[in-house]
Amino acid sequence: MATGRHDQYREDVIGRANVADTEALVDFYGDLERFHAGALWTVANRIEPWQPESRSVPVLWRYRDLRPHVLRALDLVTPEKAGRRVVYLNNPGRGDDAAAAVGWLYSGLQVMNPGEVASSHRHSASAIRFIMEGEGAFTNVDGHKMPLNANDFVLTPNGTWHEHGVGEEGTTCIWQDGLDIPLMNALEANFYEVHPDLQQAVTFPVDDTTMRWGNPGLRPAGENWSKRYSPLFKYEWAPTYEALLRAAKVSEGSPFDGIHMDYVDPSTGGPVMTTMGASIQMLRPGEHTKAHREVGSFLYQCCKGRGYSIINGQRFDWQERDIFCVPSWMFHEHVNLSDSEDACLFSFHDLPVMRSLNLYRQEALAENGGHQPILA
Amino acid sequence: MATGRHDQYREDVIGRANVADTEALVDFYGDLERFHAGALWTVANRIEPWQPESRSVPVLWRYRDLRPHVLRALDLVTPEKAGRRVVYLNNPGRGDDAAAAVGWLYSGLQVMNPGEVASSHRHSASAIRFIMEGEGAFTNVDGHKMPLNANDFVLTPNGTWHEHGVGEEGTTCIWQDGLDIPLMNALEANFYEVHPDLQQAVTFPVDDTTMRWGNPGLRPAGENWSKRYSPLFKYEWAPTYEALLRAAKVSEGSPFDGIHMDYVDPSTGGPVMTTMGASIQMLRPGEHTKAHREVGSFLYQCCKGRGYSIINGQRFDWQERDIFCVPSWMFHEHVNLSDSEDACLFSFHDLPVMRSLNLYRQEALAENGGHQPILA
Amino acid sequence: MATGRHDQYREDVIGRANVADTEALVDFYGDLERFHAGALWTVANRIEPWQPESRSVPVLWRYRDLRPHVLRALDLVTPEKAGRRVVYLNNPGRGDDAAAAVGWLYSGLQVMNPGEVASSHRHSASAIRFIMEGEGAFTNVDGHKMPLNANDFVLTPNGTWHEHGVGEEGTTCIWQDGLDIPLMNALEANFYEVHPDLQQAVTFPVDDTTMRWGNPGLRPAGENWSKRYSPLFKYEWAPTYEALLRAAKVSEGSPFDGIHMDYVDPSTGGPVMTTMGASIQMLRPGEHTKAHREVGSFLYQCCKGRGYSIINGQRFDWQERDIFCVPSWMFHEHVNLSDSEDACLFSFHDLPVMRSLNLYRQEALAENGGHQPILA
Amino acid sequence: MATGRHDQYREDVIGRANVADTEALVDFYGDLERFHAGALWTVANRIEPWQPESRSVPVLWRYRDLRPHVLRALDLVTPEKAGRRVVYLNNPGRGDDAAAAVGWLYSGLQVMNPGEVASSHRHSASAIRFIMEGEGAFTNVDGHKMPLNANDFVLTPNGTWHEHGVGEEGTTCIWQDGLDIPLMNALEANFYEVHPDLQQAVTFPVDDTTMRWGNPGLRPAGENWSKRYSPLFKYEWAPTYEALLRAAKVSEGSPFDGIHMDYVDPSTGGPVMTTMGASIQMLRPGEHTKAHREVGSFLYQCCKGRGYSIINGQRFDWQERDIFCVPSWMFHEHVNLSDSEDACLFSFHDLPVMRSLNLYRQEALAENGGHQPILA
Repeated sequence: MATGRHDQYREDVIGRANVADTEALVDFYGDLERFHAGALWTVANRIEPWQPESRSVPVLWRYRDLRPHVLRALDLVTPEKAGRRVVYLNNPGRGDDAAAAVGWLYSGLQVMNPGEVASSHRHSASAIRFIMEGEGAFTNVDGHKMPLNANDFVLTPNGTWHEHGVGEEGTTCIWQDGLDIPLMNALEANFYEVHPDLQQAVTFPVDDTTMRWGNPGLRPAGENWSKRYSPLFKYEWAPTYEALLRAAKVSEGSPFDGIHMDYVDPSTGGPVMTTMGASIQMLRPGEHTKAHREVGSFLYQCCKGRGYSIINGQRFDWQERDIFCVPSWMFHEHVNLSDSEDACLFSFHDLPVMRSLNLYRQEALAENGGHQPILA
Repeated sequence: MATGRHDQYREDVIGRANVADTEALVDFYGDLERFHAGALWTVANRIEPWQPESRSVPVLWRYRDLRPHVLRALDLVTPEKAGRRVVYLNNPGRGDDAAAAVGWLYSGLQVMNPGEVASSHRHSASAIRFIMEGEGAFTNVDGHKMPLNANDFVLTPNGTWHEHGVGEEGTTCIWQDGLDIPLMNALEANFYEVHPDLQQAVTFPVDDTTMRWGNPGLRPAGENWSKRYSPLFKYEWAPTYEALLRAAKVSEGSPFDGIHMDYVDPSTGGPVMTTMGASIQMLRPGEHTKAHREVGSFLYQCCKGRGYSIINGQRFDWQERDIFCVPSWMFHEHVNLSDSEDACLFSFHDLPVMRSLNLYRQEALAENGGHQPILA
Repeated sequence: MATGRHDQYREDVIGRANVADTEALVDFYGDLERFHAGALWTVANRIEPWQPESRSVPVLWRYRDLRPHVLRALDLVTPEKAGRRVVYLNNPGRGDDAAAAVGWLYSGLQVMNPGEVASSHRHSASAIRFIMEGEGAFTNVDGHKMPLNANDFVLTPNGTWHEHGVGEEGTTCIWQDGLDIPLMNALEANFYEVHPDLQQAVTFPVDDTTMRWGNPGLRPAGENWSKRYSPLFKYEWAPTYEALLRAAKVSEGSPFDGIHMDYVDPSTGGPVMTTMGASIQMLRPGEHTKAHREVGSFLYQCCKGRGYSIINGQRFDWQERDIFCVPSWMFHEHVNLSDSEDACLFSFHDLPVMRSLNLYRQEALAENGGHQPILA
Repeated sequence: MATGRHDQYREDVIGRANVADTEALVDFYGDLERFHAGALWTVANRIEPWQPESRSVPVLWRYRDLRPHVLRALDLVTPEKAGRRVVYLNNPGRGDDAAAAVGWLYSGLQVMNPGEVASSHRHSASAIRFIMEGEGAFTNVDGHKMPLNANDFVLTPNGTWHEHGVGEEGTTCIWQDGLDIPLMNALEANFYEVHPDLQQAVTFPVDDTTMRWGNPGLRPAGENWSKRYSPLFKYEWAPTYEALLRAAKVSEGSPFDGIHMDYVDPSTGGPVMTTMGASIQMLRPGEHTKAHREVGSFLYQCCKGRGYSIINGQRFDWQERDIFCVPSWMFHEHVNLSDSEDACLFSFHDLPVMRSLNLYRQEALAENGGHQPILA
């Protein structure tokens, strides 16, 4: 027997379900349940909303709040026991299960002491890392070792063996991890393997993918790269920031995002991986962008300057190293609070998924000059 | 303060998290919670399983069970009130929220009386329909009207206006609907619109897409189709069954699926839509296939003959019009119980998603001659 | 010393070369010649024409003219000595060297007696064949044997081993060969190999590619075809003609070509091979199409009915089995002379080259209601 | 009546044509000629060679030979009368008609005085330019103006309006033009238009495509470039040379080409245009590469250092600004004659055509340690 109300999603709109509970219907619902079935009209309006309703909420994670706790992990657990020492971000809208920072994206702050190396593994989840502080960090992806510095962006694509460490001469390092673990679990496609040797050898010259693939308008001749992720694994900050400055000289940029560039796979011009993309944007001094909303989930890190973003009518003030999220189909606009310095936001997102599946849309805010009123 | 155990997912395997709760750690976990954060090692082993663990369970829905209730809906609700009269399939593993038959796929049995027409709408969800019984059904997709008969397979791709009906001269019709509504909701990408006129005009000759695009090895010259779904909307049963018979004459077929064909977009040779694909397969008299498992969720309908499938060690006997599901990464094998007649299974699935995102894998069962022992 | 006039291509149009010969210039030209060089302005107007100027001329080859000579070859040469007994078509505009029927396309009529088999070879050139008369012909492409009947269209893609023959029970067979031999030579990319065994084995069931790939809206599941030509080698006439009739019921067709379909690679929806495409068109009783011109070279065979085409102002009357060509950028229109029967034209062409290199254009004739006046 | 010998291409190899002239056959050949036809076996061995036989020959054009004549053109003709003042390179193997430097590639040296501007035009031919000497040159492509310096590589893709000039403050400039004019004529696809205003406006900020698209691993977000050529028009020398140095640090390079990079379209990772590609390579001090041959035609310019190449057994010594060609399927190897300085070769070629049409092949020289003996 079906219990509870079944007509709570009624809408009095032609073309929508609008069926009031009756005794006969409730009997019917009970009968269906016994056969692992139900009546569509009892749930139709709920499962076919007029527009996306994200289960995530906008959140700002302040670095000054998290950093002490991240460092505290150094003493509380060893890499051997913990696997990785990471404080992950948990979107309060999502419940505990997903371990999602926003949408189906996972993110965390990982910390390592000089001389430590995490064991090597691989998984279906794709990963990115964005370096926050410290000297001497490195990563090894399928034998390609890369030293990492602040604001460097590095990939560990799905299926690649990867391990991270900090050299003996280095300092304690903190970086942001971003993975699509929640998506892999949701899609029931997640595999995990520990490297048989626990550590993998460095089999290529250090920084070789950067040197061979990280050159403007050029690619190594005769190289038939057929993997479905970028052969360029590391995107260094210096040329990235330079690119923003160059583009700012010759273009107005986007009304919604200022000077805005996507990190790309140089072998295709497309996103760096099939399930996650990443972008960098510069807000010029005093710039206040217009609001739009997009199908897709975004996680931002301020990597230069300070300002605020208005997300779904709520203001979030950020400064260097703060992280915040924008859930799907929520209006967002950004403000650089400095009159003299630019502000830069790194972000990663699931737009490659939305684009592959032909689901991407965006919409500018039409009212109020394109700016959201800030809700109390 | 964090409550409950935090070390319940410990694994004593190198490279996995293995941290026992201590008072200091539990304090730490509580502090993190206040900042919408957590310690990765408390959840790492859960969110990074060794292999996919589907939340769906294998289910068989017998037509003789469901059909009376489907017909009962004719009297209980009107199309105007209900939107559509559909009994949907609810996978018991998934909870009530998703309305998923398996994975992120929705399915239901829709019924219509002669002379009825459902109102026209469109949505981000992609839909397919497979005709089960009755005469006179038709669908109209973006102005293309198509009459439908038993075992015909028809698309209503994402974003297209569509409406269904049964002609005055027809009989009561039942068909299976398949949609990716749960996936659209999970991806927070679902939009819904009712047609401004409630019904849409027929603006092309009846069956025009079938006549122009449904020809082997040919396409209309000069037609630049750039939409990301098939320009062929209806796949009729007669040529489909003929294709199976033809292929059976010259090929052994797949060890896992017998004579197995994918419905395709003739403009690309690829899947009919970006998020859902469909296939048809023939098990020859007495055929018993070998077991394999795949990343992807499948919903089958027996459209000819009778037999059984073993899914994750469980036997499910099916006959014409029965529906069953295979969740992701569960072994499955099929048996035709007739020694003289072939048996045919129609299926739809989310393999286009898995392939677009580079997540597809399959694995044959190595033990026991490739056959699963049936669990008690 | 440069001899002859160097200013014969002068045009008195701003932006074009217009330099009269002087003594100083002629000296200069002579000096340049010694260094394998020249002055651009002496040739610029010639090598940069305002629009394409084909070196081919329109030609009609009447079957009743050629057939007796084709049959005569049976007595004059053996297949062993001749390789293949073929009368090839030679466009009078092209000189003897190219052996081109039009543009860079070769064509010829091949004849074989029952019981004969040509030796197996392969080459960079792509080939098609269209069967004209006789019973019992077959071809073997990479081990796939296919029996062939009148109006069947068959591929022997570049790089595939192929051999042709006529069964002992057959009759003398004639077919049209079409190859891009001239293009391969022009592009200096032509390789040729004789099969080490002279004949190749039949390693697949007869007609297997037709049975597995020649089904509307379907493809064999699990088959990853990655070659750059169609996996479907034979396109039979019966379903092709049926497709024209079906399309005629629901579409007006093209103003220039009537009911017009392209033969396609079912694994991509694109052309059957990378360098040559083929099409079939039906002119309905009494139909007189409008004139247009295209970048690309075409060779037509009337395979049903009778009519005429106007090419560059010249009328060419054709009946079954006649062959005619349309050179690049020449206006052409077609007329079915019967008031009761349809007429069908098979054609092959180099449009895949034009499209791959982004060179395709077409233009309708604007004047005179879209019809060319016939030149005396 | 057919005249001359018809059996001059006989080969006594099974599977090849081997038919001696007889009186009956010569009569037959004469009859065929009257119908614009011929007997395939008289030409088969000629038109189906065992491997490509280029009509071009290897040539070296020494800059010290050509430069004085190029400068002489300044006094002999005006840009208004000449269109462009260009000395073009004429491969002696090709006859006068093609105006080809090698294969179907045209090349010439263009010269301009300060203050001169050529009129704007566009054509089906694709063009590249490589700057050789002088200050102040610029080009304007569809409103994008770019200043040009020595060793800069710039595109003027097919169909784009383009004009070139040298600023008033500049010096006399010389650059190498490369176009596929011969290919466009061969394919009968060449269109030409003079700009209605003779000069076109600068409608974008100077160097905007370089600033927005010429950044490593990045692309402007939200920019949907769908044209079939690179949105990056200019490839400056400084970052290009830097890229070679970077790659040399981490890779051995190609045995045939040293450190070798392709200029690419950053929106696709593919060639810069559909019909012509370009590459840059560095031979390290003392490097002597191994010989290979490729399907494709190449035109090289030494832009740094000195050395020699062995092409088809012939040695060609080159120094800065010398130009030489490698015809299709001829073995070639390169030598840097300096023990301390690297040498760089710029090249452009038709490999995109070969690859699009699936005709590319390469083969290493197997004998003699991979090095060609130099023919006397």
